Amino acid sequence: MIQKIVILGAGNLATQLALALQENGIEILQIYSRTEKSAKALADQLHCEFTTSLRELVPKADLYIWALSDKALYPVLGEMPVPIGNVVHTAGSIPMDVFENYARDYGVFYPLQTFSKDRKVDFSTIPICVEASEEYLQAELLELGQRISNDVQIINSEQRKQLHLAAVFACNFTNHMYSVGQALLKEKGMDFRLLHGLISETAHKALYLDPLMAQTGPAVRFDEETMNLQEEELKETPEFQKLYRFVSESICHMHAAKKKLK
Amino acid sequence: MIQKIVILGAGNLATQLALALQENGIEILQIYSRTEKSAKALADQLHCEFTTSLRELVPKADLYIWALSDKALYPVLGEMPVPIGNVVHTAGSIPMDVFENYARDYGVFYPLQTFSKDRKVDFSTIPICVEASEEYLQAELLELGQRISNDVQIINSEQRKQLHLAAVFACNFTNHMYSVGQALLKEKGMDFRLLHGLISETAHKALYLDPLMAQTGPAVRFDEETMNLQEEELKETPEFQKLYRFVSESICHMHAAKKKLK
Repeated sequence: MIQKIVILGAGNLATQLALALQENGIEILQIYSRTEKSAKALADQLHCEFTTSLRELVPKADLYIWALSDKALYPVLGEMPVPIGNVVHTAGSIPMDVFENYARDYGVFYPLQTFSKDRKVDFSTIPICVEASEEYLQAELLELGQRISNDVQIINSEQRKQLHLAAVFACNFTNHMYSVGQALLKEKGMDFRLLHGLISETAHKALYLDPLMAQTGPAVRFDEETMNLQEEELKETPEFQKLYRFVSESICHMHAAKKKLK
Repeated sequence: MIQKIVILGAGNLATQLALALQENGIEILQIYSRTEKSAKALADQLHCEFTTSLRELVPKADLYIWALSDKALYPVLGEMPVPIGNVVHTAGSIPMDVFENYARDYGVFYPLQTFSKDRKVDFSTIPICVEASEEYLQAELLELGQRISNDVQIINSEQRKQLHLAAVFACNFTNHMYSVGQALLKEKGMDFRLLHGLISETAHKALYLDPLMAQTGPAVRFDEETMNLQEEELKETPEFQKLYRFVSESICHMHAAKKKLK
């Protein structure tokens, strides 16, 4: 069983994960970060040690969790002086075997959520996607995940890559649609708050209806007349006009395919 | 003051609006719908009269609310035998003056929300956008809106057109991004529920952060390497691949413009 953990990273995810693990009986031995300020800030919150040197990592941890940004992971890994114990990372898009020469056994511990600095998340509802190089480690990671979440799943590297892509659509691209909505309102002196209720309800609907079934608007009705009118209205913002046409066509395409399947 | 209302339409919006108005002391005199079944169903819920003939509309109402679908509004209007009293419609994209020759005075009463059959909405938080041909009617519509909602605003026709477009992005297009995420998961044997928490949190973040500021992911970091990798991963679904590239470019474009403004 995993009981003593070292965490590499001190960003949003590292912070929230470390706090959740500690609250659920896991001992955080040490925080590593490349900058002393952020390492110390998190270590102070947890009342544990910190370091900015990979050579000073304590050797006795049951697990080393790499919660660094995707960009930082490879350079930091390159600086690792000697293989350490069991290692996992928390990234959606990085393969498990990056650790092959740097760890005893290794795996992935990927919490699927978007983390913000000043917003504490409830880990119990966050899916944690687990994968490991060895069966005993997979069992240990499942047990560790279940301490903080009610939704721990075994997801292999290929699935995880696809899941991460799906998350880009459902999170980043969705947020971009909100941004465009906001920009359009601003243009005519209206407040983004006008859309708040609609945004909440649209998200809520996707959770209890199938989003494919829940689709509304001119594109799903193949209503060319309204689409042409709305496209014309966007002529002052050609970027949004292109986006309007393109996403509308994508909706038409998906729903035409759905009809064919019936 | 408006106290007696006739509602034309018996769909999702007509139903929810009629119920909310009745609960707040408005008398619903009559329901009109082109099909007897739907007219009767709603009239039974409200314990009021119904008709399927425009010639049988009761003449004494303070307001006639046209809550028909956008497509039905024009044909039904063409069949109107004589001008009636004060009339409003509930549509985002239809100009107010469609009623010019069919009503005494006229306006718009547009609740900005997506309505579903079996889900009762809380009208008190729905923005109601009001516009009228005459000042006295505008005041009456404001008062009527305030009976059922805490967020009633005067929005002119030009603004309303733009608001409706913004709603297409924030609701229909957002929902399409959910659908693509779901399709990607299905492809690799994963359940859409994996994304539920992410969808909720992304919507929630947009309400308390500026969505432009809240944007995350490879595109906003101008991370070409990750974007190329992810695009490559989508090669089996060229439609999604195109969408990925196009929305990513749109994010880059918007955030490059933001940087320039600074």
